[in-house]
Amino acid sequence: MTMHDDITDVPGVRIGHSTDRAALTGCTVILTEGGAVAAVDVRGAAPGTRETALLAPGRTVDRVHAVLLTGGSAFGLAAADGVMGWLRERGVGFPTAAGAVPIVPAAVLYDLALGEPAHPDATAGRAACDAALTAPAGPLPQGNVGAGTGATIGKLRGPAGAIKSGLGSASARVSLGALGRFTVGAVVAANAVGDVRDPATGAIVGGMRAPGGGWLDSFASLRDGSPAPGNPDPAALPDLTGTSTTLAVIATDAPLDGSSASRLAQNAHDAFARTIWPCHTPFDGDTIFALSTVPGSLDPRALTALSVAAEATLTRAVLRAVERATGAGGLPAAAEWLRDGGTAAGTARR
Amino acid sequence: MTMHDDITDVPGVRIGHSTDRAALTGCTVILTEGGAVAAVDVRGAAPGTRETALLAPGRTVDRVHAVLLTGGSAFGLAAADGVMGWLRERGVGFPTAAGAVPIVPAAVLYDLALGEPAHPDATAGRAACDAALTAPAGPLPQGNVGAGTGATIGKLRGPAGAIKSGLGSASARVSLGALGRFTVGAVVAANAVGDVRDPATGAIVGGMRAPGGGWLDSFASLRDGSPAPGNPDPAALPDLTGTSTTLAVIATDAPLDGSSASRLAQNAHDAFARTIWPCHTPFDGDTIFALSTVPGSLDPRALTALSVAAEATLTRAVLRAVERATGAGGLPAAAEWLRDGGTAAGTARR
Repeated sequence: MTMHDDITDVPGVRIGHSTDRAALTGCTVILTEGGAVAAVDVRGAAPGTRETALLAPGRTVDRVHAVLLTGGSAFGLAAADGVMGWLRERGVGFPTAAGAVPIVPAAVLYDLALGEPAHPDATAGRAACDAALTAPAGPLPQGNVGAGTGATIGKLRGPAGAIKSGLGSASARVSLGALGRFTVGAVVAANAVGDVRDPATGAIVGGMRAPGGGWLDSFASLRDGSPAPGNPDPAALPDLTGTSTTLAVIATDAPLDGSSASRLAQNAHDAFARTIWPCHTPFDGDTIFALSTVPGSLDPRALTALSVAAEATLTRAVLRAVERATGAGGLPAAAEWLRDGGTAAGTARR
Repeated sequence: MTMHDDITDVPGVRIGHSTDRAALTGCTVILTEGGAVAAVDVRGAAPGTRETALLAPGRTVDRVHAVLLTGGSAFGLAAADGVMGWLRERGVGFPTAAGAVPIVPAAVLYDLALGEPAHPDATAGRAACDAALTAPAGPLPQGNVGAGTGATIGKLRGPAGAIKSGLGSASARVSLGALGRFTVGAVVAANAVGDVRDPATGAIVGGMRAPGGGWLDSFASLRDGSPAPGNPDPAALPDLTGTSTTLAVIATDAPLDGSSASRLAQNAHDAFARTIWPCHTPFDGDTIFALSTVPGSLDPRALTALSVAAEATLTRAVLRAVERATGAGGLPAAAEWLRDGGTAAGTARR
């Protein structure tokens, strides 16, 4: 029923990437110039964000004109300046006496450890907007693009165990009873300290490389309080600073108000829990935005069906972020690691 | 390393049940008369609670003397009156000029549809306290006891598809580096509209009964917006009112402050997401409390290890809530349903 099985299938949503393959960073902008109902749920304990306070219940400004997902840690927030400027030139924003003020919530992931020292800036934000405007309406480039350009997973042992992940997207049609059928889409930049598992089987599909091939179990290692593999200090707990943050946007043309969008963002985190082991740690800034291009509301029954569809769609998007990635920065991607039988590390830069 | 592999292994924590097998309801009290650091994370959209507002950051009262999990929907909150009275008689509470005021956060689940019309009251709350005081220090009775007495899962088709679940508990020892080793325990009353899955395999271990045997997939049914099985209206979305709410307590002797306890409660919800499909819906009041018997704090590295151990422990507790349940109220438990090859319904009342 969907055209591309990605977030471009959602009417009223445009998306573009800025990708810096040398510095291995980038950003992704989701444009909703018509003004989207929006909400956010920040579940990691170390987030980096802009314009999330206005998304709390009861605030005055209730429409956003874009959402930015970006690498570069907190420095990457500068890319939102470019998105704002790009929108202002087009007269898009919250109306004020002195002109429109574009509302651009943003969240960052940490990719500074990979590639050259650089971060997305205002120019990158503008480039992502241009890409959203000029790209055909899908399919969306995935893998090592946009906010997923520098994304990695399986970092408990450091670079010796990590693999490259990236950006993934998926969409679904959902039937909301008498209201009719709608589209829900997800885009995610998967950047986790741990492993990604397919919840249908429980199997790790990408994560911490085992010497000789296959995967180690990051969650079990942390659960057992064991030191990071290779760490000679038996009492050492791993310092996970700068290892993670997975960012996602759920978008739909189903009618939502701020409250129901908030539920959608909250529920979508269950897809993180099912695929990312662990997630929501003290060291990451795991954040999900929910957008609706159609202001309205849903009764709890329809909201339940939409939330479950969003969880399932984001689950597929996370798996795709791992599948579509390619090796970079000296790290293999999952498929390369498995194909090469544990020898891909160091040969995978492309 | 643990004695009973249940929450009684946590030093300073006592737990008791009040079980009404006729009315198929009950309550469970977790006593921390010494005053425990506490936090709560309410992730369902239809909660029933007492004394959760004081657990928000920055509030004055920062110790709780008991936590109550109870059946009876919002009526069951009355059981906390009995817990408060029981504690007051023992001089336990927040000190005031006119005597101690016991602090007893509570949360309810909906079990009114099973058994006779009744709910836990103050007498039941007192009985649970007595049981906590007089019971040996474990093992904890599990299954159709306490807050799990009326718990059921797999309700998307109504009683025709549901099975009996109950209360489960587990514990683990966790190594927090140089801080040493601690215990983390979990207790859960698993009462969900959907299915319980083992995240290690992705398989449903209990949920909506398929005619003839085995399980239907509640999550897929909701995801696809299909009407409840057996509903002739193709545009009907199921009304899930009164179908769910899973309640849990995480307890530990690792040193926590309110902020780190809050992280622990938040992270524990990832165990719900991995085992309960769906959870955190607009119709449930899924709630998790976190308690520490030792005021203090943890650095983010230790908190990460503790959180992952808590997630793993709660995951096992949820699975055990299904495994330990027995048929009641005309519903079989999972093991009975699988053993009898789809004929257990209606014969399982005991």
